[in-house]
Amino acid sequence: MLAAAAASPAPTAAPEKVLAPAEIVASAPAADWLAIAPSDLLVMDLAPDAAGRARRVVIQLMPAPFSQGWVGNIRKLAAAHWWDGTSINRAQDNYVVQWGDADGEDKAKAKALPEGLVVVDELYYENNPSERFTRKLINSSLQAVETILDRGIACIENAQDDCKKGSSPNPPGDFFRKGDPYAVVVGFAEGWPYAGGYDRRGRNEFWPIHCYGTVGVGRDYPPDTGTGAELYAVIGHAPRQLDRNIAVVGRVIEGMEHLSTLPRGTGDLGFYKTAPERTPIRSVRIGTEVPDLPAFEYLSTESASFARYADARANRRDAFYIQPAGGVDICNVPVPIRRRK
Amino acid sequence: MLAAAAASPAPTAAPEKVLAPAEIVASAPAADWLAIAPSDLLVMDLAPDAAGRARRVVIQLMPAPFSQGWVGNIRKLAAAHWWDGTSINRAQDNYVVQWGDADGEDKAKAKALPEGLVVVDELYYENNPSERFTRKLINSSLQAVETILDRGIACIENAQDDCKKGSSPNPPGDFFRKGDPYAVVVGFAEGWPYAGGYDRRGRNEFWPIHCYGTVGVGRDYPPDTGTGAELYAVIGHAPRQLDRNIAVVGRVIEGMEHLSTLPRGTGDLGFYKTAPERTPIRSVRIGTEVPDLPAFEYLSTESASFARYADARANRRDAFYIQPAGGVDICNVPVPIRRRK
Repeated sequence: MLAAAAASPAPTAAPEKVLAPAEIVASAPAADWLAIAPSDLLVMDLAPDAAGRARRVVIQLMPAPFSQGWVGNIRKLAAAHWWDGTSINRAQDNYVVQWGDADGEDKAKAKALPEGLVVVDELYYENNPSERFTRKLINSSLQAVETILDRGIACIENAQDDCKKGSSPNPPGDFFRKGDPYAVVVGFAEGWPYAGGYDRRGRNEFWPIHCYGTVGVGRDYPPDTGTGAELYAVIGHAPRQLDRNIAVVGRVIEGMEHLSTLPRGTGDLGFYKTAPERTPIRSVRIGTEVPDLPAFEYLSTESASFARYADARANRRDAFYIQPAGGVDICNVPVPIRRRK
Repeated sequence: MLAAAAASPAPTAAPEKVLAPAEIVASAPAADWLAIAPSDLLVMDLAPDAAGRARRVVIQLMPAPFSQGWVGNIRKLAAAHWWDGTSINRAQDNYVVQWGDADGEDKAKAKALPEGLVVVDELYYENNPSERFTRKLINSSLQAVETILDRGIACIENAQDDCKKGSSPNPPGDFFRKGDPYAVVVGFAEGWPYAGGYDRRGRNEFWPIHCYGTVGVGRDYPPDTGTGAELYAVIGHAPRQLDRNIAVVGRVIEGMEHLSTLPRGTGDLGFYKTAPERTPIRSVRIGTEVPDLPAFEYLSTESASFARYADARANRRDAFYIQPAGGVDICNVPVPIRRRK
């Protein structure tokens, strides 16, 4: 199945050039690109590197209805300039880089948090009424799931067909047909990847996915869920075992290399053993507070261009490849994001 | 399903402590650890870092019957000390670091290769008689597949049951039951992860998998398959689309951080734009030529300890987790490897 062929019937019988995924993205019409509001960006400026070069990391925050308790806390922390003067405290190879108050574990020395942060329940790791949380069911989460379904999540069901009933303009495709190791369904909605399944009562549940570059909320042992003051970014293979066990609050959209190349810590779990090894954080701001921030846009996951791109990621037929895989890991379909032209 | 409970019947009714994967590995009996021969190791010493610290990367070479044409070339290149004085020329974020002759593309300046390198056919990207290569079928590859099956690859079949007929001592488990996005089956044999499927004639085919740390052979456009002089290591999410499209020849078992933290190149595909950005390679040797090389060992993938470890990776029930995934990506079950005690 080659979506490109179906999408653009050729006026002649000339063979169509098979585009690589990046070429499909580059040729997408302007209308398929949607703006990302600066108010949904978190801008972290690290201290300059050894050569004096600036290191800016831009993070897009998770949209509603997912993780909004933590995202609200993060907005408050940024507004209070709380992270200014904190540091990156951990870099564990093939896992995460983590930042926040290096003394956060020590109650006597920990930096005071701003007023108004909320405590968020584990319920909100997914947007669902899963069996685990049946006793805590609230109507708002049920409605939110329906909203996602109504918007049309582009998903392929392994064993059941009713996921396809959504109103997605995406062709059904077959790129996830071989299954996902962690979920019954995976797909995209409004620019983000989600996984989903059913609880024992047959109700849908959805949750955001940990991929490379995903930003989540560090926490202590359950039932602690973290405030959002301690954040991490994935710098290795997608640690999907964290899905539904920890809050996903965003993803790095620019400057990822400033995190992924940091020296790995040599303490337990990749924490730095000494203070000088930590990378200082100069400031963290919501995008609307950053005058020199460029505009960003993402390729609509509901567009025909995205469907062609995802299909090409699953079936590489461009010149370098000899055997298309016929399937793809959802974390190998990163949503294209770029500076707005 | 908790393999740990079945493996150690408790003398009392006291609840068994649920071990984290690393704890299972640490408590595995000595007999479950198997030595890695120094002759199967490739030792790459980079120039020291800016602080003068040594940077050694140890790579384990792919065992027979997979990729042995390229592995043989790599042994010849190392014996000839061919890589000494070459460099790391590319670092693309969330993809690969690549090394070899920076002038390799320029026939006038390229470093001469040693005598005796062989040209390997695309057939050997997998060990199989796939449809694509039917016309090239040779008995040796068929026999090799049978050997793998007879040894007992621990795999779970999505749609068919005959994969289970192997003589694997691993419990069938359910950790891959949700499927793999790229293959019909995935599993482990003799310390390595493989994927497999069927061709249209119903014959088995198996191939090595690209995971974090996997080492492969850079190549030009097909039908070129590369000599092995140009190598790369995966530094991001598993690029499984490369499986069966490029030769997998090994994996990094120590010093991965010396590759994953290299500054990313700013040229196309992450190539460095200028020579000073490249990291010099002092030497590459087969392990038997390195006097100060420690001994390494891996956790037998046919052991009960490995089965418990893989199950725990798929079903995190240790204290930090609240929802076991019930499945796992094969690249999230790295084979435990350590210095021999």
